[in-house]
Amino acid sequence: MSVLVALRTGATEVPGRGVVDLSGTIGKTPGTGFAWAGATYQVDRPVLSDFLGHLRRQAQIVTPKDAMYLLYLAGIGPGSRVAEAGSGSGALTTVLAYAVGDEGSVDSFDRRDDFLEVARRNVASAGLSGRTRFHRRDVATDGLEGGPFDAVVLDLPEPWEVLESAKATVRPGGRVATYTPTYNQLERTVRALREQGFQDVRSLELIERELHVGDGGTRPAFDMLGHTGFLSSGRRGP
Amino acid sequence: MSVLVALRTGATEVPGRGVVDLSGTIGKTPGTGFAWAGATYQVDRPVLSDFLGHLRRQAQIVTPKDAMYLLYLAGIGPGSRVAEAGSGSGALTTVLAYAVGDEGSVDSFDRRDDFLEVARRNVASAGLSGRTRFHRRDVATDGLEGGPFDAVVLDLPEPWEVLESAKATVRPGGRVATYTPTYNQLERTVRALREQGFQDVRSLELIERELHVGDGGTRPAFDMLGHTGFLSSGRRGP
Amino acid sequence: MSVLVALRTGATEVPGRGVVDLSGTIGKTPGTGFAWAGATYQVDRPVLSDFLGHLRRQAQIVTPKDAMYLLYLAGIGPGSRVAEAGSGSGALTTVLAYAVGDEGSVDSFDRRDDFLEVARRNVASAGLSGRTRFHRRDVATDGLEGGPFDAVVLDLPEPWEVLESAKATVRPGGRVATYTPTYNQLERTVRALREQGFQDVRSLELIERELHVGDGGTRPAFDMLGHTGFLSSGRRGP
Amino acid sequence: MSVLVALRTGATEVPGRGVVDLSGTIGKTPGTGFAWAGATYQVDRPVLSDFLGHLRRQAQIVTPKDAMYLLYLAGIGPGSRVAEAGSGSGALTTVLAYAVGDEGSVDSFDRRDDFLEVARRNVASAGLSGRTRFHRRDVATDGLEGGPFDAVVLDLPEPWEVLESAKATVRPGGRVATYTPTYNQLERTVRALREQGFQDVRSLELIERELHVGDGGTRPAFDMLGHTGFLSSGRRGP
Repeated sequence: MSVLVALRTGATEVPGRGVVDLSGTIGKTPGTGFAWAGATYQVDRPVLSDFLGHLRRQAQIVTPKDAMYLLYLAGIGPGSRVAEAGSGSGALTTVLAYAVGDEGSVDSFDRRDDFLEVARRNVASAGLSGRTRFHRRDVATDGLEGGPFDAVVLDLPEPWEVLESAKATVRPGGRVATYTPTYNQLERTVRALREQGFQDVRSLELIERELHVGDGGTRPAFDMLGHTGFLSSGRRGP
Repeated sequence: MSVLVALRTGATEVPGRGVVDLSGTIGKTPGTGFAWAGATYQVDRPVLSDFLGHLRRQAQIVTPKDAMYLLYLAGIGPGSRVAEAGSGSGALTTVLAYAVGDEGSVDSFDRRDDFLEVARRNVASAGLSGRTRFHRRDVATDGLEGGPFDAVVLDLPEPWEVLESAKATVRPGGRVATYTPTYNQLERTVRALREQGFQDVRSLELIERELHVGDGGTRPAFDMLGHTGFLSSGRRGP
Repeated sequence: MSVLVALRTGATEVPGRGVVDLSGTIGKTPGTGFAWAGATYQVDRPVLSDFLGHLRRQAQIVTPKDAMYLLYLAGIGPGSRVAEAGSGSGALTTVLAYAVGDEGSVDSFDRRDDFLEVARRNVASAGLSGRTRFHRRDVATDGLEGGPFDAVVLDLPEPWEVLESAKATVRPGGRVATYTPTYNQLERTVRALREQGFQDVRSLELIERELHVGDGGTRPAFDMLGHTGFLSSGRRGP
Repeated sequence: MSVLVALRTGATEVPGRGVVDLSGTIGKTPGTGFAWAGATYQVDRPVLSDFLGHLRRQAQIVTPKDAMYLLYLAGIGPGSRVAEAGSGSGALTTVLAYAVGDEGSVDSFDRRDDFLEVARRNVASAGLSGRTRFHRRDVATDGLEGGPFDAVVLDLPEPWEVLESAKATVRPGGRVATYTPTYNQLERTVRALREQGFQDVRSLELIERELHVGDGGTRPAFDMLGHTGFLSSGRRGP
């Protein structure tokens, strides 16, 4: 079991464990072990999978395989300025904010206050608030604002409604990437990307298959998530 | 068609296009178009997919889906200090160096001079040499050197031979991730990870299925790459 | 290499081999070897895969995995009376005629003479003409004829146009199964099956992954057919 | 809900429904409806999926997609003489006995009395006892008996132990097909098939993906069985 807490001097409340003084671990090498109340613990620097593993969930969240590949399709890396709609529970926002690093930024849009509230808390728990701005806005009707962005990532039911605005706010050469669960949404999104003149339009899905290595040998796992979503992307021309 | 060149004042040789003066585009917004010899071009800031698309290939290279998920499994992001073995053609090295940003570093090991030479050129073409160090070293016999690393990524035929050294050079809480094409290698790697005491050991593969949206409707593409490799990972305890 | 010929007394023309007297093999145990012109041959009783492997192809043909599962979904076995539309190259017709045995029958409909001609020849080569009747008919406009059938199998672009007729000609409790390449066709077919009151409506696809066992170990094959078609089925109520 | 009962004159006990006189439905067209105790029922002629859906299960049973493709790989159809080991719960036995028709036969071997007992009852429920013989026998040590068979199907943990016997009892040109859950078993089986001189040795798996057509559109189902088993086959030479 692991928990996600911010180290501070003085008492820290550790969910499910009570209050503990973690002052002594500050400045220590990540991964250092310490003893407390008769058990051994390890203070580690969290990585992306730790953040995603501790998310509060309000909406269905993107899977890591899809989130990581969206980064690739959208050309997102350290320094990127990214727009995202919608915020949802902030899972994808967290991945984006993690990947853009200190020099990058994420503008995340959602029309629902409850989603924004959860997303904001999740991004704050990951220590990524400094590079993330949340906006309450219905991008389907009012469009994205700000920019120019290096990339626009759309994780909402009707991405085609936002493509004109995405094209207007992403810089020339920038990418738009979308994530949609049904073939119908995928098809309509791809046709809209083409109509808007986006280049290098492509679509795919990633199927994750866990492998089980046991005493009896190695085989794919019996349990499997049959479907998550389809990814599409396009690149704005000059 | 796109080419990967470094912008400079004066004449620039563009492969397949001759010599052109690109001075005027320096400092312009990425994606800006310009006319030359009767045609229109666009100068863009390259992203990861551009780097991978222009790699010189000496060995089989990792696919983007696998490279991106290896980042996730190994907990790699901006600021990470990463060791990689072997270098191969430098495709995975490029992904790692891109993801760690200016603050991170990649130490890449290979025992073959020809691979190191190609990898070094590919990483240089991507402008990522400053954060990457190449080492000629047979890690199976001599082990990794340097560290402590936040993550060790193994893309070589017998990763189990390097796990003891990986454990010694990755920091407590750091991750080891491997990439192997056969079930036999996967099984032996997973058993070795467990024997070495790594935690949260898991294995999986990602199957990429392209979608085709045409006049007649939407369907998965007929052509498909049936297999790339299996990913495994583990986390060093305290 | 194998060839498909009918054994007879006297000279038999073997494609690519010239004329040979196979009289001596008649009545011998299938699989018996014999020498001819300095080489050794084997006369075998053909099975379904032999028939499919020697088909003349005019149209895209169904894959064995899909054909076999269509038998299952449609409840087809020895003794079944089956209707099929369209005939195409007769590949699925051959599978159906093979599975229904001597006691069963297949009525196959197509509106194109060239398809019917090829299908007829392929079914004849498999020795299955006795249980198969071909009909030149546009089932989309004129409907299926004959019946009652135990099962109706639809392998044509717009199966929903034939469902009303399929329902009228399949016996109560009988099954209709369809094979369509796109999601759009699949969706429209499933909605039409439901509207027509078919029960137990289901849809699926089968993905075939070849395994490669080599000196270096075992892995999925690199080459793979990414998509064939979607299967759907329903059962007529009382 | 459906139940599997044998029609007879006089009272029939219908599991979960009490005792009913079904005499009036004998000789009626399959699928005919009738009213009883205020509700409407349908008497239908069962097909293979009905038999498999009502199996008593003692051991893990083969899935329909795999069973149907084993028929194809092993060249089994109406009239085939088939050997099977082991019997397990009789699911695959039922599929084999169904496919070979009245003219064919299935010899099924198992070393466990409890499995034989369940398999025998399941095959009897499907009305296929007449063409099926069960044998209590440890084929790994004592080999198959009878033959020559057109096909031998092996669904047991160590098929390589039975391949020599399979080769001796299958006729020249006949097929052996195996079903194994792990890569280790698959690899060892394929190597043994080659060592025994079997021809056209191949291996594959079938991945079944259900499609969901709902109000919101069409997508693959979320629930999915990630793995069943690997199929291998070979053909005995002259």
